[in-house]
Amino acid sequence: MREYEVLETLQGLGFGEADARTLADHFLDAERRGKTGHGLSRVEWLATRPFELDFSARPRCVLDEPGYQRWDANGALGYLTLAAIVEAQRAEPPQHARLVVAQRSFPTGMLGYWARKLAEGGLVAALTATSPARLGHPDGGPKLAGTNPLAIAIPSSDGEPLVSDVSMGRVTYGEVLAGEADEDELVPFGGEHAHKAFALAVGLQLLVDSLVAESGHGAVLLVAKPEADPLRALRARADGVRLPGDR
Amino acid sequence: MREYEVLETLQGLGFGEADARTLADHFLDAERRGKTGHGLSRVEWLATRPFELDFSARPRCVLDEPGYQRWDANGALGYLTLAAIVEAQRAEPPQHARLVVAQRSFPTGMLGYWARKLAEGGLVAALTATSPARLGHPDGGPKLAGTNPLAIAIPSSDGEPLVSDVSMGRVTYGEVLAGEADEDELVPFGGEHAHKAFALAVGLQLLVDSLVAESGHGAVLLVAKPEADPLRALRARADGVRLPGDR
Repeated sequence: MREYEVLETLQGLGFGEADARTLADHFLDAERRGKTGHGLSRVEWLATRPFELDFSARPRCVLDEPGYQRWDANGALGYLTLAAIVEAQRAEPPQHARLVVAQRSFPTGMLGYWARKLAEGGLVAALTATSPARLGHPDGGPKLAGTNPLAIAIPSSDGEPLVSDVSMGRVTYGEVLAGEADEDELVPFGGEHAHKAFALAVGLQLLVDSLVAESGHGAVLLVAKPEADPLRALRARADGVRLPGDR
Repeated sequence: MREYEVLETLQGLGFGEADARTLADHFLDAERRGKTGHGLSRVEWLATRPFELDFSARPRCVLDEPGYQRWDANGALGYLTLAAIVEAQRAEPPQHARLVVAQRSFPTGMLGYWARKLAEGGLVAALTATSPARLGHPDGGPKLAGTNPLAIAIPSSDGEPLVSDVSMGRVTYGEVLAGEADEDELVPFGGEHAHKAFALAVGLQLLVDSLVAESGHGAVLLVAKPEADPLRALRARADGVRLPGDR
């Protein structure tokens, strides 16, 4: 699918032009990065209307205090909620740091995409989000946590941010949707140390679940102004080793 | 070693009584939890004076604004710096959330111990800290990141917090110090997915390194008031499965 076809398809579903462009940019970036589970397979998935879509809904900032914002997707897609949050942080960065809680916000997509935009705007970002419970304890039992990725993006004076974006699943649900993995591979990553990825997934799950004021899937973003510029020196030390998020 | 012997040893090194008690509590809790690498082996390690110890140094809060504090260990041990930070957060919790950056703060020990104290005080906590670079890319190359644990602690209305505390190493440096692991096992955990733990370690390394205003090892703490109480329901769903931090 070319860009205009993605836009046409999304507008055909009912999205307005600006929202369709926001969504298409995210899906096409995921394709370019080989994260096809967050890419065009999600356009087809949205076309199946896995939940009610309200095309006129706008995410709202419901609380704005120094160092803290609470947003509510207000019926809009999580993608569009994170897009609005990123735009708001870039327009009015925190003096030092701000915690942003996005409630009733699903699905949020490839978290590194949103974190990267903040780092491209000169901000440090750490972002996590919950999704349906798909990970259980490595020893068995009920599914207790989403794959709950943690994305960290760091700006650099050399222009290219570093973006670390790690899902706690051995595979992503997106890869299952894209037919690249079986659902029974959707377990905490790490083999004999999978209890570590399970602990991270549960910790991040409860972090989000305890900070949202309305239940449901959500996202938690830390955004901060950097005090130092460590990435250039790390890249020099890395001496050509591939760093997270590099293509 | 019994408690009074630990206290005597620490006071013998030069620590005052209150600091010796703070340190002993941490080391003995680590022993009780089986994390011996953060336990009494560290008393012996401090006795070797691996770096200069300034027994009269006091950590200082050098910047205090709504939603943000910056601390400097000011020559004190990282353990004592985190202890002072935890005490300050419990005494004056944030209205919603606060990012606390601790610079020149090393070593910080078992991060779950500090995060648990915050959760016992009713606060949500996420804490990471850097340490000497000991993890390289799974494919090889220079050591680029510390084992950089991420600890997340969540309070619960049923009284017992959940504490997830995950180091990105297959083993900890503490386990190497305690003779429980070889130094060549100090690689990112995860086996065939070790690039994920490496990405987390690098992301957390740069998160801390970009937020400290003075270079050196440091810690970053997010502390927040919970808006919800999700842990009781998670424990019910878990139906007896061991959750992170449970004994």
